[in-house]
Amino acid sequence: MSEPFKIAIAGLGTVGVGVLKVLEANGTRIARRCGRPIEVVAVSARNREKDRGVDLSAYTWFDDPVAMARESGADAIVELIGGSSGPAKAVAEAAFAAGVHVITANKAMIAVNGRALGEQAEAAGVALNFEAAVAGGVPIIKGVREALAANDITAVYGILNGTCNYILSTMRDTGRAFDDVLIEAQDLGYAEAEPSVDIDGIDAAHKLAILTSLCFGTPVDFDAVHVEGIRGLSDIDVGHAEELGYRVKLLGIARRTDAGIEQRVHPCLVDRHATLASVEGVFNAVVVEGDFVGRALFVGRGAGEGPTASAVVADVMDVAAGHVVPPFTVPGADLENLPQVPQGSYVGPFYVRLRVLDQPGVFADVAAVLKEQGVSMESIIQRGRDEAKPVDLVMTLHDTREEALERAIAALKDHPHVVEDPVVIRIVALDEAD
Amino acid sequence: MSEPFKIAIAGLGTVGVGVLKVLEANGTRIARRCGRPIEVVAVSARNREKDRGVDLSAYTWFDDPVAMARESGADAIVELIGGSSGPAKAVAEAAFAAGVHVITANKAMIAVNGRALGEQAEAAGVALNFEAAVAGGVPIIKGVREALAANDITAVYGILNGTCNYILSTMRDTGRAFDDVLIEAQDLGYAEAEPSVDIDGIDAAHKLAILTSLCFGTPVDFDAVHVEGIRGLSDIDVGHAEELGYRVKLLGIARRTDAGIEQRVHPCLVDRHATLASVEGVFNAVVVEGDFVGRALFVGRGAGEGPTASAVVADVMDVAAGHVVPPFTVPGADLENLPQVPQGSYVGPFYVRLRVLDQPGVFADVAAVLKEQGVSMESIIQRGRDEAKPVDLVMTLHDTREEALERAIAALKDHPHVVEDPVVIRIVALDEAD
Repeated sequence: MSEPFKIAIAGLGTVGVGVLKVLEANGTRIARRCGRPIEVVAVSARNREKDRGVDLSAYTWFDDPVAMARESGADAIVELIGGSSGPAKAVAEAAFAAGVHVITANKAMIAVNGRALGEQAEAAGVALNFEAAVAGGVPIIKGVREALAANDITAVYGILNGTCNYILSTMRDTGRAFDDVLIEAQDLGYAEAEPSVDIDGIDAAHKLAILTSLCFGTPVDFDAVHVEGIRGLSDIDVGHAEELGYRVKLLGIARRTDAGIEQRVHPCLVDRHATLASVEGVFNAVVVEGDFVGRALFVGRGAGEGPTASAVVADVMDVAAGHVVPPFTVPGADLENLPQVPQGSYVGPFYVRLRVLDQPGVFADVAAVLKEQGVSMESIIQRGRDEAKPVDLVMTLHDTREEALERAIAALKDHPHVVEDPVVIRIVALDEAD
Repeated sequence: MSEPFKIAIAGLGTVGVGVLKVLEANGTRIARRCGRPIEVVAVSARNREKDRGVDLSAYTWFDDPVAMARESGADAIVELIGGSSGPAKAVAEAAFAAGVHVITANKAMIAVNGRALGEQAEAAGVALNFEAAVAGGVPIIKGVREALAANDITAVYGILNGTCNYILSTMRDTGRAFDDVLIEAQDLGYAEAEPSVDIDGIDAAHKLAILTSLCFGTPVDFDAVHVEGIRGLSDIDVGHAEELGYRVKLLGIARRTDAGIEQRVHPCLVDRHATLASVEGVFNAVVVEGDFVGRALFVGRGAGEGPTASAVVADVMDVAAGHVVPPFTVPGADLENLPQVPQGSYVGPFYVRLRVLDQPGVFADVAAVLKEQGVSMESIIQRGRDEAKPVDLVMTLHDTREEALERAIAALKDHPHVVEDPVVIRIVALDEAD
């Protein structure tokens, strides 16, 4: 067997410790599979004294991860510090400058700075692997970059954030309110104390921007993603969705059309019988549509020590076995800038809920406003009948252009009998039989 | 860009033509992705005159695919002839002898002769890739061999035959009988005129044997697979399953336990809310369970020109990019022979339907036979109440050892009031929340 492949780990949180555990548990098998053992030579973290439940005595300790990237003698740096720039980026750049491969789980860094980092990796002739950055243990990066690489891919979408999916699944199952379920998710460790990156859709948008680049061969462009999260989503709408035969899911969706690239993250109503609708709790799921393969779906745990470490070690194994691919599938010079389609030109069916005072003429006024904007209703139900209290008008709309709906909603907001901001959720047909 | 990677295609049926179409449609993208163009230099098929809708004039024609493997000058042979031995195997062996890579979609050949062929490939230092042999466009081979390679895998199971899945989905949706739906599937091209390889479970068993080897690091052993198909499955049982909250699926299931390896293909009742239950029609789905990744699911089209060609070309691209892995994940010398667990020692819940004459005492006799074998009922329902006609006793059993149930069934068959062979279907819990 060949010389060991030497790695240094920057960041010893959950995932870093997970990587040490994988190598400890399955080291023999891993060595057989990649033709050489993988050896941890150095580690770096903020606090050397912290008890992490693993023995670090065999590894050289670095207080400074950038110095480690330069000086540890490792073949590859495993960057698990996190953050789109700062020390994580400095570590990656130092590694490339030293001709050292980089494996990372850092979705923010790849989404925001992936293009520049990919070019540096390419120039240095080393790998920049980031399987763990998207959907944790789900091998969607390798899936797109290699397994489906013979296809012209026109769409990629899925459940990219386990925290949101857990909250939505629990709201549906229990009928409980968002805030209440969020607190439970925080208690269970499924949501952070500061949950906004997850529940406001930013984490999902990071992952979607990376998938978009890989699938369509465009430079990664996080700023172009239209992002809406699930904060404040009402259990009333979760319930109505269920009654209408749908489930609420936070999806990331990217499409390539003749007009350009669409990238959006938002809550969706999906058919309750769709396979994606059955993906519950902390699982992630990604669908890729290619011209020859058709629809391919990948499902698995999107986060956590074991799944994320599994992905990181698989990336390390590829490099150890001499398998290095361009970070964004094709060489950086071949990435194509395509126009980003504005969200306003999105066309699709919608769910709308208006809370109104139950006065004569409200119905007619609503219908008139919609008609004025060319918005066509498929169904409308009034929920509740009590002149003393507001009632809900729950509507589904036929295919509607988003900017027309926005104008209608703005007008309805100003109507004296509309007592709360209207709720608008896109209905997404998944066409799974195709 | 480097020299073209030259391939020769043996067999120009649906998949062979599909490979030509993929290379024609996406050749530029493919060249960018693997760093060099892929060039077809030669083709071989039984009938040179047949119109296949593609222009073959640019390729050297060989009547003899074995001669092509030896003499075409190709870097890789794409074997699409089919059959576990005969010309397909001769082509692969000739290629290895000439130091030429082999890419194949031939599940029968890999399931039956994979071990020997893998050793030949390894000795020659060339690739034996067979992504298209299992689940068509679903990248499960790469998933197991590379993406999940850091894991100790203990189970792999799924829907491995689209023909059976289509028949079962259609029976459930329409309430129609097996024979009737089979004829429709044949008309639609989803089933062969001679359907036994599909409906008797042999095709699924080929695929399962390959997955078992890849997942558990054992030599591929098709003969050890316990195989039952769906031939003659009654719409009565499909209907009862639905009422009980289950769906009938033909699953291939392999597990590694302390006792050894289990490999079995048979109809199963699965919870209708399980993600696998929602995989309908001609789609395939495979679940892999690893110690760190947990459960990972891959879904896609299991057959057909486009999906299969997508997988074949991805295999070619890997080799063109210089990425060659051991055919069965680890070097042949590292494959471990583990005991194969006999089906009789399987333990699990069961569905049983007995058609009996509605006579006093039948119920008590059935209960007594089951009790004698230590078989414990969870529920029993009698369907129909007509002394003139037989009625159905539909039972679900608690966890039962299969050989005990077999003894009970043998005894029940001999009971004078049991008028048809009892129907026995395993109930498989998929534990998806884990």
